[in-house]
Amino acid sequence: MNVLQVELGERSYPIFIGSGLLNKPELLDDYIRGQRVCIITNDVVAPLYLETLKHSLQHYQVDEVILPDGEAEKSLKNFEKIMSHLLANGHGRDTTLIALGGGVIGDITGFAAACYQRGIDFIQIPTTILSQVDSSVGGKTAVNHPFGKNMIGAFYQPKAVIIDIESLKTLPDREVAAGIAEVVKYGILGKRDFFEWLEDKQDSIKRADAATLIEMIQTCCQCKADIVADDETEAGIRALLNLGHTFGHAIEAEQGYGNWLHGEAVAAGMVLAARLAVVMNLLEVSDVRRIEALLSSFDLPITSPTDMNFDAYMKHMRRDKKNLAGKLRFIVPTSIGTSEIRDDVTEEMLQQVL
Amino acid sequence: MNVLQVELGERSYPIFIGSGLLNKPELLDDYIRGQRVCIITNDVVAPLYLETLKHSLQHYQVDEVILPDGEAEKSLKNFEKIMSHLLANGHGRDTTLIALGGGVIGDITGFAAACYQRGIDFIQIPTTILSQVDSSVGGKTAVNHPFGKNMIGAFYQPKAVIIDIESLKTLPDREVAAGIAEVVKYGILGKRDFFEWLEDKQDSIKRADAATLIEMIQTCCQCKADIVADDETEAGIRALLNLGHTFGHAIEAEQGYGNWLHGEAVAAGMVLAARLAVVMNLLEVSDVRRIEALLSSFDLPITSPTDMNFDAYMKHMRRDKKNLAGKLRFIVPTSIGTSEIRDDVTEEMLQQVL
Repeated sequence: MNVLQVELGERSYPIFIGSGLLNKPELLDDYIRGQRVCIITNDVVAPLYLETLKHSLQHYQVDEVILPDGEAEKSLKNFEKIMSHLLANGHGRDTTLIALGGGVIGDITGFAAACYQRGIDFIQIPTTILSQVDSSVGGKTAVNHPFGKNMIGAFYQPKAVIIDIESLKTLPDREVAAGIAEVVKYGILGKRDFFEWLEDKQDSIKRADAATLIEMIQTCCQCKADIVADDETEAGIRALLNLGHTFGHAIEAEQGYGNWLHGEAVAAGMVLAARLAVVMNLLEVSDVRRIEALLSSFDLPITSPTDMNFDAYMKHMRRDKKNLAGKLRFIVPTSIGTSEIRDDVTEEMLQQVL
Repeated sequence: MNVLQVELGERSYPIFIGSGLLNKPELLDDYIRGQRVCIITNDVVAPLYLETLKHSLQHYQVDEVILPDGEAEKSLKNFEKIMSHLLANGHGRDTTLIALGGGVIGDITGFAAACYQRGIDFIQIPTTILSQVDSSVGGKTAVNHPFGKNMIGAFYQPKAVIIDIESLKTLPDREVAAGIAEVVKYGILGKRDFFEWLEDKQDSIKRADAATLIEMIQTCCQCKADIVADDETEAGIRALLNLGHTFGHAIEAEQGYGNWLHGEAVAAGMVLAARLAVVMNLLEVSDVRRIEALLSSFDLPITSPTDMNFDAYMKHMRRDKKNLAGKLRFIVPTSIGTSEIRDDVTEEMLQQVL
C-alpha cells in the first residue's frame, strides 16, 4: 500500500493506494470519529462493493443511500434526498459520510457533507480511474444545474481518500478509457516525463497490470496534491487542472450529461485546447498529433461531436466558472508538459478551432 | 458611525453601525471587487430600501432577486431559485451578492454565496434588530428543511456587515420585540452589566432613541464577534449563543415557521432553559423572575405554546445539531451573566419543565 499526503494545514489528509483496501477496517477506523456512518453509493456499485465495505464497518451503526447511476443524478434533487435521509434517520454532526463510487458519487457526497448541519466528516472511496486520479482528491464538491456543470458546490476536503485498485476490475472498458483522459491530462499540463511514460506503458495499462496502475494513479494523485496544496480554492495555478474542461463541459452540457462521459468530453476538449494553442502560435502541430495519438490509442474521441457548432460551444463557455469580468479564460498547452491560463483568446481564434 | 472588526485571520471583516449608512456608497465600494452585484431581498423590504441601495450602487451592474417575506421562504427551493437567476443572468465568480433584509434573507443569501460556483463574495445589510445583533455576524448561513431549521448550510463569512439603524423605523413593533429577545440573550449568557443596562434603558429602547440603539447593537455585535473569533465553527463556546434556541427551534418547527417569530420562540425558549437550570439546581428562581420581567416588558412570550406537549418538544429536540453521540445538549444559564453547555439533562428534568 502506498500513502500520499495532501498538505493543507489543519485540513491535511492521506491518500491510500493499493490492492484490497476495502477489506482493511483499520484504514477506516482512524478517520471515523463517531459511531455512525452513512454510505452514499449508486445502484451499479452497491451490488459489487457495498457488502464488503459494510463488513469492514461492522463495529459502526451503518446505513446507506443508493442513488441511480449516472451524471444526470448529480443534481440538487438527489442532494436534497441525501439531506432528507440523514435527517429522517437522526444523523448528527458526528456522523461520517462515505462516498463509494465514481466522480458523481464523490462530488455529491462531498457537497452533502459540506452542507449537512453546516459540515460533517466524509471519506472518499473512489471506484473509477477518473475519480481515483482526479475528483476524489482536492475537495472540489458540487452538483450540476441544468444551466451548467458543478455550478453549485463547495471547497470541502475529505478526511481520507482510499483507492482500492481491485474496484477497477469491474469497471466497463469505456469508463476505463474515460478515466485515462484525465491521466493523460497531467502529462500534458505539467509532466512531460509522465506523458512519455504513458506512451511506453500503454500495453501494461490496457491489461490492468497492478503495479503499473498503482504507479500511474500515484503519479496523478501526487501531481494533483501538489497543485491543490499550492492553491486550494483555485485562485491561481489550480485552474491548470481544467485543461480540456472548458470545451469538455460545453460538450457534456450540449450533448446531455452522460451521453458523452466526462473523460471522453475532456479528451476531445484537450485536443481542441491544443489546436487553439496552435492557432495562438503557442504549440507545434507535431505535439497536437502526439496528444491525439496517445488519446486515440485508448479509444478516446479526439474530435468535436459532429452536430455541435460554434454557437453551441459559446453558449456554454460564456458561463464557465473560470471567466472573470466577462472575459473567457482558457487553459492551453504550450508544449507537452507545460501549460498556461490565457484570457486573450478571441472569437476569431475559437472559430478557427470549432 | 461605529466600526467593529470580526477577527478571523484572512476571513476578518468589519461591522459598520450608524444612521443613514445605506446612502454611503464609499462603504460598499471597498468590499465589491468586480463590476456586478446581485441584491437578494424580499417583497416587504424591497419597496422600502431597494432603490436607495441601488442608487448607492449606480456605478455597478446591478440586478436583484426578490423573494416573498417569511421564514417559510428560507428553503432549498428558493436557494435553487437564486442559483438559477445567477446562472441565467451570466453572473461569474467575481459577482458580489448583497443580502438586504432580515435573518431569512441574510441566511439564504450567505448560503447561496457559499455555494455559487463554489463560493463568491457577499455583504450583509441586515434591516431588522434580530439580524443586526445576531444572524448577520459570524458566518452561519443556512436554509431550513421540513425536518429541521438551518439543517442545510455552511460556515461562510461575509466581506462586510453594514447596519443602518434607519431601517428599524419601518420595522413592525412585533419584529422589534422579537429582535430584543436576542439582545437580552447576550445579557443572560455572558454580560450581566449589559442585562442591567437593558433593565435601565427599556424606555429609551422602546422610543427608538438612536444613540441607545447604536450602543445596544454595538454591544451585541462585539459580544458575538468575540465569541466567533474564538470558535468560528462552533466546536466549543460558540454553542452558548444557542441559549434558548433548543426549545425555541422546537417551538418554531412545531407551530410552523413564521407563526411564532424566531425571537418570540427564543424568548420562551430562554425562560424554559432558565427553568431547566432551576430544576438542575444551577440557577435561583429569583433570576428566572428577572429574566421573565425583562422579556415581558418588551411584550415577548415567556411561556410555552399552550398546545405543545412534552412529546412534541422531544421530537424536534432529538434532531438538534448540538447533540453528540445521541445525547441531548442544552445551554443553561447558571446566573444572569454566565451559562454552560450541559449534556446531563434527563428526560425527567425536561418533563418537569415542559
